[in-house]
Amino acid sequence: MALLLAARPSVQVRLWSAFEENHRILRETRENQRFLPGVMLPDRVELTTQEAAATDGADLWITAIPTIHLRSTIRRFAAFATPQTAVLSLTKGIEAETFLRPSEILSEILGTDRLAVLSGPSHAEEVARGMPTSVAVSAQEAGLAEWIQSLLSSERFRIYTNSDRIGVELAGALKNVIGIAAGISDGLGYGDNAKSALLTRGLTEMTRFSTHYGAQSETFHGLAGMGDLITTCFSRHGRNRWLGEQLGRGLSLDAILASTRLAVEGVNTCRSVHDRCRNDGLEMPITSEVYRVLFEGKTPRQAVTDLMHRLPRAEQI
Amino acid sequence: MALLLAARPSVQVRLWSAFEENHRILRETRENQRFLPGVMLPDRVELTTQEAAATDGADLWITAIPTIHLRSTIRRFAAFATPQTAVLSLTKGIEAETFLRPSEILSEILGTDRLAVLSGPSHAEEVARGMPTSVAVSAQEAGLAEWIQSLLSSERFRIYTNSDRIGVELAGALKNVIGIAAGISDGLGYGDNAKSALLTRGLTEMTRFSTHYGAQSETFHGLAGMGDLITTCFSRHGRNRWLGEQLGRGLSLDAILASTRLAVEGVNTCRSVHDRCRNDGLEMPITSEVYRVLFEGKTPRQAVTDLMHRLPRAEQI
Repeated sequence: MALLLAARPSVQVRLWSAFEENHRILRETRENQRFLPGVMLPDRVELTTQEAAATDGADLWITAIPTIHLRSTIRRFAAFATPQTAVLSLTKGIEAETFLRPSEILSEILGTDRLAVLSGPSHAEEVARGMPTSVAVSAQEAGLAEWIQSLLSSERFRIYTNSDRIGVELAGALKNVIGIAAGISDGLGYGDNAKSALLTRGLTEMTRFSTHYGAQSETFHGLAGMGDLITTCFSRHGRNRWLGEQLGRGLSLDAILASTRLAVEGVNTCRSVHDRCRNDGLEMPITSEVYRVLFEGKTPRQAVTDLMHRLPRAEQI
Repeated sequence: MALLLAARPSVQVRLWSAFEENHRILRETRENQRFLPGVMLPDRVELTTQEAAATDGADLWITAIPTIHLRSTIRRFAAFATPQTAVLSLTKGIEAETFLRPSEILSEILGTDRLAVLSGPSHAEEVARGMPTSVAVSAQEAGLAEWIQSLLSSERFRIYTNSDRIGVELAGALKNVIGIAAGISDGLGYGDNAKSALLTRGLTEMTRFSTHYGAQSETFHGLAGMGDLITTCFSRHGRNRWLGEQLGRGLSLDAILASTRLAVEGVNTCRSVHDRCRNDGLEMPITSEVYRVLFEGKTPRQAVTDLMHRLPRAEQI
């Protein structure tokens, strides 16, 4: 996102890092060697670890913080926010303890309602390299979404507005669980036929769950729903798909998580959604089987077998 | 399909070949070396080139004939059909001159209404090798769909019934055009972000077109719609995606078609659908751009650029 904004001469961009060490390396090399090797950050992007300096006079805050660290990290900025502060959230998840969406956490801690969310098929590796990408931006305040659309849009990065913020955020969280399931299918050696069927059924249960909590079903047929789900389940960049693939090959969750420092959002999202479904009596067959593989030691092969036998015999039910 | 049926001891299977040469090779090697190398056809599958022998006493005819050859081929069987003949069509396309769906052609020529269609994410290469696959079967007569479901279902091949035969057939035809577009995106070197957005927008225009002609929108969110579309656009087996990729790399349609003996259904479907849209005033932006690349010499890069500029700025329209 810093790269996209830095391409506009009229926009001043500051990039805040949570960790001194990351900041030092970025300052010295202008390159995020771990996540975006070979992509140089222009000199006009200011680098800082100071919350006051990062936010001073800013027209828009863009937050890209994993869900598990969102609350503790954003607290450091609370003193600099006002009810007029506009925030664009890129976080995709649901807070485990509270079941709050990222924009709800941001609103609660920063005391602003001027919140927008961005989602859609947009792996950073491709965006940073200028490959064509289309996403959805949603805000309660239509003017805010349209302003962000005009600010960030380019030939290579298309933004569509969408008025369903709940749906855009829930789709962004839930697709990571289906991404794990798709990875399991890959790890078991299954093919495109199986994975496409899994995505189709997965989108149906994502939609059923989310409309129960106030989302609009149309969002799930759009970029933040179907679009992002496909990229998550097919891209070699996807962390959730990768984690599922390791599970499918027989590795344990502990062993997989010990081998990466990356946040894999789908693991916590799966637990939250599973608990919520049990409380509210909702059916999510794929999410339930992913839960059993992740947390109850069920073998991936048995989970897939049980899943196929649980599904209905007619499509329209 | 012959392999699936041959796995049931109670079912007698006959495989009819249109060409003497193919029949002779199959009889000698029991292997379809060109399309399914390494997959042996069990001895209990009878091979024939005689229409009378193929259909004598048969409870079900299964037809897998490219659209362009469907009418002429099925005429050879007309004398052996009765109003009670049950036919399952695997053909995915629309007849160019008449805009008829495969089941309509079969019904017209064979004089039976006992027609079912099968569609969904089901590349034959994976089905033949026993990889898990789920498909939809639709028939006007619910009992026929359920009978086919019981006849063909296995642990590895799951069949769901669907009452919307128009939607199942139109989805199976239209997805090939989006498959060409997805291949063009691949050929231009674009990534998963672009392709996922293209599929999302593609499914929307497929749905809009088909509901205009009597299909149900739910079908497009199911296996025959979204499911098959994903496989078509991502699988390395897909002929339509392959053709698009060659276009994206700069080859002409004539050069590509000269290099293959395969029927690439999406080429003719694109022309039929484009003509029909023009007559009926329907908008299909992706199909229109594929048409211009295929038949009007437009460069793929210009088509993608124009497409991005024609799309709406808000998702919900």
